[in-house]
Amino acid sequence: MSAPHKKPITQAYPEPVERLIGEFMRLPGIGRRSAERMAFYLLKASTDDAMRFSKAVADVKQLVRPCSICLNLTDVETCRICADDTRDAGTILVVEQPRDLIGLEQSGTFRGVYHVLMGRLDPLAGVGPQDVAVAQLLERIDDSSRNSRQAPVREVILGLNPNFEGDTTALYLAEQLSSRHVRVTRLARGIPAGSQLEFASTAVLADAIEGRQELAPE
Amino acid sequence: MSAPHKKPITQAYPEPVERLIGEFMRLPGIGRRSAERMAFYLLKASTDDAMRFSKAVADVKQLVRPCSICLNLTDVETCRICADDTRDAGTILVVEQPRDLIGLEQSGTFRGVYHVLMGRLDPLAGVGPQDVAVAQLLERIDDSSRNSRQAPVREVILGLNPNFEGDTTALYLAEQLSSRHVRVTRLARGIPAGSQLEFASTAVLADAIEGRQELAPE
Repeated sequence: MSAPHKKPITQAYPEPVERLIGEFMRLPGIGRRSAERMAFYLLKASTDDAMRFSKAVADVKQLVRPCSICLNLTDVETCRICADDTRDAGTILVVEQPRDLIGLEQSGTFRGVYHVLMGRLDPLAGVGPQDVAVAQLLERIDDSSRNSRQAPVREVILGLNPNFEGDTTALYLAEQLSSRHVRVTRLARGIPAGSQLEFASTAVLADAIEGRQELAPE
Repeated sequence: MSAPHKKPITQAYPEPVERLIGEFMRLPGIGRRSAERMAFYLLKASTDDAMRFSKAVADVKQLVRPCSICLNLTDVETCRICADDTRDAGTILVVEQPRDLIGLEQSGTFRGVYHVLMGRLDPLAGVGPQDVAVAQLLERIDDSSRNSRQAPVREVILGLNPNFEGDTTALYLAEQLSSRHVRVTRLARGIPAGSQLEFASTAVLADAIEGRQELAPE
């Protein structure tokens, strides 16, 4: 065994492997090690499996688009929820992102429609109303009151996240909606079901006390 | 707000999004949440970026293959190391996988060539000699002693991992090589450079004592 060379030959993986590792590393939360593991998984997978993966990536950009009404993700012109005429188009639940919508839908509690802002206001990061789908929401409400064939929007439920950016967005939307004839509500805050009071934060407890609900005898 | 429906409408993402999430979930160490995050990253990325990713996945299967001599990953017929005639083809360092080779190359210490087994013997999991590239290694050594235009293999360094499967593999290879006129060595074991003795395991310390090296005065 000879002594270490002055110029170590930095052998990297072949270019296509390095390129794939680089692409994986661009994904959120993926470091070099994980990216290598994933690249090797694909190298070992069958060609069919790898091609299916490649096609899934390409398809997601080519087939998926925002719903023309609510901006939810869809692979058709109007998403399944907006196209469902058993749902109440007069009640719009505003959420930040498609993921929030999925969670709310899975609860099976809501029979109105949605509006996906595709973001939230974040003044500290320079995200203003023009960067999220506020104008589309207002236009949608105004259109519904002008167009006699459509049910007018009666209620807008603000389903923003319970944090600084979400509250900022909710406040801004409430202001914009104040001149329109719609009821503006927001999702209830309080103790999360299944949790334990002793572990709840003071902010959660304060919300729970402030928003306490009447227990009417049946 | 109406009471929860008996049959909640389980709204999933559009099919292409669900398909991509499913593909990401097949990768090692990726759960549903991470897969969703990755899918949304690609949805938000530019089409160019997503297409580049898709192509990188496809290319890795189409362009990368095992080196015809050492089985290292390569995008040409014979890998850069085997094709480099300044390297000593008479010394073969046997490793389990391409990743091990990269690490050894980066140390800049080795000027011989490699043989990548593409696995290790694991009798408990039913992985036998026929499942890894043992036959190719033996054939390569036998060929070199028959073929006068090639340097005969003089030494085989076993660079298996220092664990049960690696040791099993090393033992098996040493046995197979015993009838051939080659020196068989294995990588040194001992205290890892940069570590602290007080935190070394008993196995590491036992290796370090057993393999202690002469400190010859210059």
